Amino acid sequence: MTTESTEERVLAAVRERREQVNAAIDEDLPLTEPERLWEASRYLLKAGGKRLRPTVSLLAAEALADVPPLSVDYRQFPALDGETVDVMAGAVSLEVIQSFTLIHDDIMDDDALRRGVPAVHKAYDVDTAILAGDTLYSTAFEIMAETGAAPANGLEAMRMLADTCTRICEGQAMDVEFEHRTEVLPEEYLEMVESKTAVLYGDAAATPAVLLGADDEAVDALYNYGIAAGSAFQIQDDVLDLTVPSEQLGKQRGSDLVENKETLITLHARQQGVDVDNLVDAETAETLTDDAVEAAVETLNEAGSIEYAREKARSLVEQSKADLEVLPDNEARNLLEDIAEYLISRGY
Amino acid sequence: MTTESTEERVLAAVRERREQVNAAIDEDLPLTEPERLWEASRYLLKAGGKRLRPTVSLLAAEALADVPPLSVDYRQFPALDGETVDVMAGAVSLEVIQSFTLIHDDIMDDDALRRGVPAVHKAYDVDTAILAGDTLYSTAFEIMAETGAAPANGLEAMRMLADTCTRICEGQAMDVEFEHRTEVLPEEYLEMVESKTAVLYGDAAATPAVLLGADDEAVDALYNYGIAAGSAFQIQDDVLDLTVPSEQLGKQRGSDLVENKETLITLHARQQGVDVDNLVDAETAETLTDDAVEAAVETLNEAGSIEYAREKARSLVEQSKADLEVLPDNEARNLLEDIAEYLISRGY
Repeated sequence: MTTESTEERVLAAVRERREQVNAAIDEDLPLTEPERLWEASRYLLKAGGKRLRPTVSLLAAEALADVPPLSVDYRQFPALDGETVDVMAGAVSLEVIQSFTLIHDDIMDDDALRRGVPAVHKAYDVDTAILAGDTLYSTAFEIMAETGAAPANGLEAMRMLADTCTRICEGQAMDVEFEHRTEVLPEEYLEMVESKTAVLYGDAAATPAVLLGADDEAVDALYNYGIAAGSAFQIQDDVLDLTVPSEQLGKQRGSDLVENKETLITLHARQQGVDVDNLVDAETAETLTDDAVEAAVETLNEAGSIEYAREKARSLVEQSKADLEVLPDNEARNLLEDIAEYLISRGY
Repeated sequence: MTTESTEERVLAAVRERREQVNAAIDEDLPLTEPERLWEASRYLLKAGGKRLRPTVSLLAAEALADVPPLSVDYRQFPALDGETVDVMAGAVSLEVIQSFTLIHDDIMDDDALRRGVPAVHKAYDVDTAILAGDTLYSTAFEIMAETGAAPANGLEAMRMLADTCTRICEGQAMDVEFEHRTEVLPEEYLEMVESKTAVLYGDAAATPAVLLGADDEAVDALYNYGIAAGSAFQIQDDVLDLTVPSEQLGKQRGSDLVENKETLITLHARQQGVDVDNLVDAETAETLTDDAVEAAVETLNEAGSIEYAREKARSLVEQSKADLEVLPDNEARNLLEDIAEYLISRGY
C-alpha cells in the first residue's frame, strides 16, 4: 500500500460524497429571512471545504452497517432496529458546528482569510459574524434533532454534540492560555489539541453509531478512532510547518516559530534545554529566511523534537486503526483507516 | 385585585425560588478548568438577575401537575408517566441561554454595563466574552440533556431549545436591520419582539410541559402564554421609556427618541403622519430635557400612539391569561396570570 494510492483512495472517497453533502447542506440550511443573516451564516459553508468530517461520518455508518460504500441512501439509512435514520443530517450538523467554530475563531484570531475568501467578519462585520456563528450553532442542534433516530439515540447524539461544543470552547481557551504561560507540558498540549480539534472528528465518527443504535463498544471505538486520528492530524500540521517548502505550504515555512506558537515540537525541545525563544531572529514571517528556518530545524532535529512529534502522530494513527478492529472488516472500514493514514501522510 | 398586591405576589414567588435556582446554577455550572473561561462564563449568571424565566418554568410545572407551589422537589418532579423529571435543570438551561444572549448582545451593542457590573467583554475582553457565550450555549444543551425525562420528551425539549435559539438570533438580526430601514410595519416590529424576546418566555413555560409528558394542547397553551406575556413585556418597556419619570427609570426618560430606536409607538405615529425623526431636538440623552420629552409625548398622545401600544400590551396580557385556561385552576396557574399582569403593571 503506497502513500500515493492511500491519498488517491481518500480523495476519491471525499469527492464521491461531496456533491451529496453540499446538496444536503443546502437543503438543511435554506436561505430564508432575515436574508442577510442567513447569507452570512451560509457564506463559509458555501465557500467550500473538503468535507472530510462528513465523509468520516458517512463511512462510519457504512462500516457499521456492513454495506458497500455508496450503496444505500444516507437520508434513509437502515438502523439496527429496522427503522431508517438520516445519517446525512448527523454529518451536516457536525459540518455546521465546524463552520461556526471557524467563524468565531477567525474573529478571535483576527484572521482575514479563510478558504481563499475573506473571513465572515471581514466580508460582513464583526457583529454579523458573531450572530452568524450563533445561528449556525443552534441550527446544528436543530438538524441533529431531525434524524428520525429512535428518541433515546437521538437524545444521546444531541448530548454528545453539546459536550463536543463545550470541549471545543475549552480547547480554544487552553490554546489562548498557553500563549501566556512559560511552561506547558506536552501532555497539556495534547489535551488542548484533543479538545480543540480532535473531538469533532470523534463526534463525526461516533454520531452515526449512536443514531443507528450500535452498542457502546462500537460507539467508543469510533469515538476513539476520531480522537486519535484528529490529534495526529493537528500534530502533523506542526511538523509540516517546519519541513515542507514554503511554495508547497502556501505560506512561509517555519512561520509558527516567529509567531511564538507552542507546538509539541517546541515543548519537547524546551524540555531538552533548547533555547526555543531564540531559535530564529526574525520578528515576522516576512523577514524570515529559509536558511534561518533550516538552521532552526537542524537544532530541533538534534534535540530529537521533530522525530518525537512525528512518532507521536504515527503512533496515534496506529492506535486509531486498532480502534476500528471491533467493526466488521469491509471497504468502508478500510477507507476510514486510509483517512487516518492520509491525515499524517499528506504533503500539506 | 389591586396592582400592588399582584406585584407583591409575583415578587414573593420569585424570591421564594431564587435561592434554589441560584444553587442549581452553581451545581449545573461548576467552576472547573480552564478556570478563566468558566469564571467569565459564570460571571453574569453570578451577578444576579430576578430569575423571572426560571420562576415561570417552575410555576408551569406546578400548575400542570396540579400541586401546591413549593410542595415538591423540582429536581425530582413527578412526570405523567410516574417517573421523576428534573424540571429545575430545564429552568436553569433557559437561564443559561438568556445569559449567553446578553453577553453576545452586549458585545454587539457595545454596552458597558449589565446588572450593575461591567459587561463581560469589559470585565474580561471581547474574545473571552465571545468564547464565554459560546461555552454557555452548549452547556445549556448539556444541562437540558440531563433532566431524566422520557427520551422522546427530552429530545423534543432539546429541539425546542435549538429552535428558540435560532429565533432569538433572527430577532436580533431583524432588530439591527430595522435600524437601516425607513419603513417598518408594526406587524414586523411585533414579529421581531416575538423572536428576540418572547420566545424565551414561551420556551420557559412550555419546556416543563414537554419534559413531564403533557399533551400538545397544554404545551401549546403554555408556549403561547409565554409568547404573549413576553411580547407585552417588551412593548410595555417602550411605553415606560416615555411615561415614567427619569428618577424612577434610572435613565433619562425618552432616551429611545434620541437614539432613533423604532418602537411600536413611533411606528404607529409614523403611520399617523407624525414627523417622528424631529420629535425632539436633542442629539444625545444628556442634552434631552424633560420639557422636550413632555412635548413629544403630547404629540404622540394626540396621534393615539402611546395608547395604541398600551392597548396592544394589555390585550396580549389578556390573551396570555386566556391561554392558561386549559390548565387546572390552581395557585400556580394564578401566579402565572399574576406574572403576566406584573409584566405590564410594573412601574419600571
